[in-house]
Amino acid sequence: MINNNNNIDFTDHHDDEKFMRRAIELAALGRFTTSPNPNVGCVIVKEGEIIGEGYHHHAGGPHAEVNALKMAGNNAKGATAYVTLEPCSHFGKTPPCADALVNAGIVRVVAAMQDPNPQVAGRGLHKLLTAGIDVSHGVLMQEAEKLNVGFFKRMRTGFPYIQLKLGASLDGKTALANGESQWITSKAARQDVQNFRAQASAILTTSATVLADNPSMNVRWDELSNEIKAIYPQEELRQPIRIITDSQNRVTPKHKITQIEGECWLARTHSQKNEWQGNVCEILLPTNGKNNGVDLVLLMMQLGRRNINTLWVESGAHFAGALLEAGLVDELIIYIAPKILGNDARGLFALSPLSSLSEAPEFTIDSLQQIGSDIRVCLKPRY
Amino acid sequence: MINNNNNIDFTDHHDDEKFMRRAIELAALGRFTTSPNPNVGCVIVKEGEIIGEGYHHHAGGPHAEVNALKMAGNNAKGATAYVTLEPCSHFGKTPPCADALVNAGIVRVVAAMQDPNPQVAGRGLHKLLTAGIDVSHGVLMQEAEKLNVGFFKRMRTGFPYIQLKLGASLDGKTALANGESQWITSKAARQDVQNFRAQASAILTTSATVLADNPSMNVRWDELSNEIKAIYPQEELRQPIRIITDSQNRVTPKHKITQIEGECWLARTHSQKNEWQGNVCEILLPTNGKNNGVDLVLLMMQLGRRNINTLWVESGAHFAGALLEAGLVDELIIYIAPKILGNDARGLFALSPLSSLSEAPEFTIDSLQQIGSDIRVCLKPRY
Repeated sequence: MINNNNNIDFTDHHDDEKFMRRAIELAALGRFTTSPNPNVGCVIVKEGEIIGEGYHHHAGGPHAEVNALKMAGNNAKGATAYVTLEPCSHFGKTPPCADALVNAGIVRVVAAMQDPNPQVAGRGLHKLLTAGIDVSHGVLMQEAEKLNVGFFKRMRTGFPYIQLKLGASLDGKTALANGESQWITSKAARQDVQNFRAQASAILTTSATVLADNPSMNVRWDELSNEIKAIYPQEELRQPIRIITDSQNRVTPKHKITQIEGECWLARTHSQKNEWQGNVCEILLPTNGKNNGVDLVLLMMQLGRRNINTLWVESGAHFAGALLEAGLVDELIIYIAPKILGNDARGLFALSPLSSLSEAPEFTIDSLQQIGSDIRVCLKPRY
Repeated sequence: MINNNNNIDFTDHHDDEKFMRRAIELAALGRFTTSPNPNVGCVIVKEGEIIGEGYHHHAGGPHAEVNALKMAGNNAKGATAYVTLEPCSHFGKTPPCADALVNAGIVRVVAAMQDPNPQVAGRGLHKLLTAGIDVSHGVLMQEAEKLNVGFFKRMRTGFPYIQLKLGASLDGKTALANGESQWITSKAARQDVQNFRAQASAILTTSATVLADNPSMNVRWDELSNEIKAIYPQEELRQPIRIITDSQNRVTPKHKITQIEGECWLARTHSQKNEWQGNVCEILLPTNGKNNGVDLVLLMMQLGRRNINTLWVESGAHFAGALLEAGLVDELIIYIAPKILGNDARGLFALSPLSSLSEAPEFTIDSLQQIGSDIRVCLKPRY
């Protein structure tokens, strides 16, 4: 590869993984704030020494590469840049990072993976190559994929990455027969839920849950874990968009979820004006043809178009069952409290009756751990 | 302490835990065969070197101390004996181990704990002391307790240690509405169950389960894990006693559970002669006064009197609920398969309806792990 600076950085290529790991660490610092943008980290290295570090913090703010180049300054000339995602090649809210790297005199770029964003999709790496830069990609690709499961799913399919959260007793019950459900899981489990909510682009629930519990479905900074508070100061708090399926127009301005800070979208089948706060809007959708509910597939496509990367769903048994039966669950997160409520209590999933065990939706366990006094299991469906 | 041998073993007392740990390892080798006796291990040490090792293998066979002394031979004179349980002081099927230790010239005895067996209960240690032996106890006591949870519970309370095993889907279902239940959990989970069964004194199930599934409820050596097969040769296989609650006398000689090798006890409220194999007998008990079932507390007392240390229960939702409501569950072992069966399917626990969440039986998690594709959680009730 001919280099336009007639310059070679002597950083040992065997250290590529080490520096990429650092870039991934940096990228993850943006996970509470970048939505709808991806998390990206960048490390600039010269002769084996890190001379610049940066990550993308929020949409509209500088990209990871620009932050890292700024720290490196003139020193960047002749250096290697490690980036967790292919540098952009297009003018978005900021100029292309590929140009910035070329202009700074970077001689080698190592990307963890190509950007599946159709606006980039290899064009960033191509631009670097044609500028004579030594380009590699595929270093720690799997780890880099995990940084942006939501963004990548949206870029590749148009749909958000959908996480369904449920809480139940050991015998799969979510409430007593009389409806009492607060609280089955422990405070530690609810705090853990806050950590997930804080990373989601949006939180979705149903009018049934709103009418039953009048929840806020927001992120409460005070309830985040100390580890997260340390890297996510209160003044940076971003409220995920709150989305409510409300085919019967039952949600009203008196419900807390519509009153608090941040956007609130009502997914409805017909419009009904109301004295909403400025932050509430309707998304109109066809019904699903089954029970006059909102068509869930079309809803999710709409949410994808509206830049929702990761959708965190908290709902009751009927919506959970419908989402699962529609094949829309990417990840199931169940908090299991070590209690028994008995067969009489309310169940976790309303499904169409199964006639054989082979029809039962199956999952693989992604992680299993104790959270406070409860169990948390994260699962991926085997569709 | 005056020593009757005018002899002191120079083994460093700081090594007491190290040698006791070895004795505990040895004791555990007997866990498939000693019932109704406790697991005991013994190490004889002289000047810091192990000169004898032994464990109790089966009731009627030599005790751990005798096996270890045999290996040490004349060398035992002036040595220290580490025993996981206070040496016995009474003539049972074998002569008292306390005498054997004295006669062998042992100068120091370290016991992990006293024997709660009322026939021993400190008398073994006292006998050693009066013979001029240096005696300590309480070394690794907690670990030693775990070797014999069943035996100790029976000695202290008269009741067996009751382990309730259940298998369910993520949503707490044990069978489809149509009754199909084979198999919800994986082969690996069923193999793990075999490992537990093999350590139990007895396996209890109900006539409802026998009529529904016609199970064998035995230990199948081929299905034990390789780790266990390696220390538990097929020719030593001990079948736990099979116990069936059968208040309506519905179990007949045609059921597999009555036909296979090993003892089978029918817990009934009234006798009914039948053409049983020689290994089947009845235990007659009062009814519980609720649903004409067997009185469970009296049944467990009977089983304690009949030397059942550890009782492994596999049953349906009604018996599980009754056992839990009677406060008879010492440990709950749930295998959770990563599947969803839906609210329509059959539940895990039939309990009297709860009017408040505070009435729900609660547990603490003792262990949590993935077994094959399933989750295993072991819990202790917070009574």
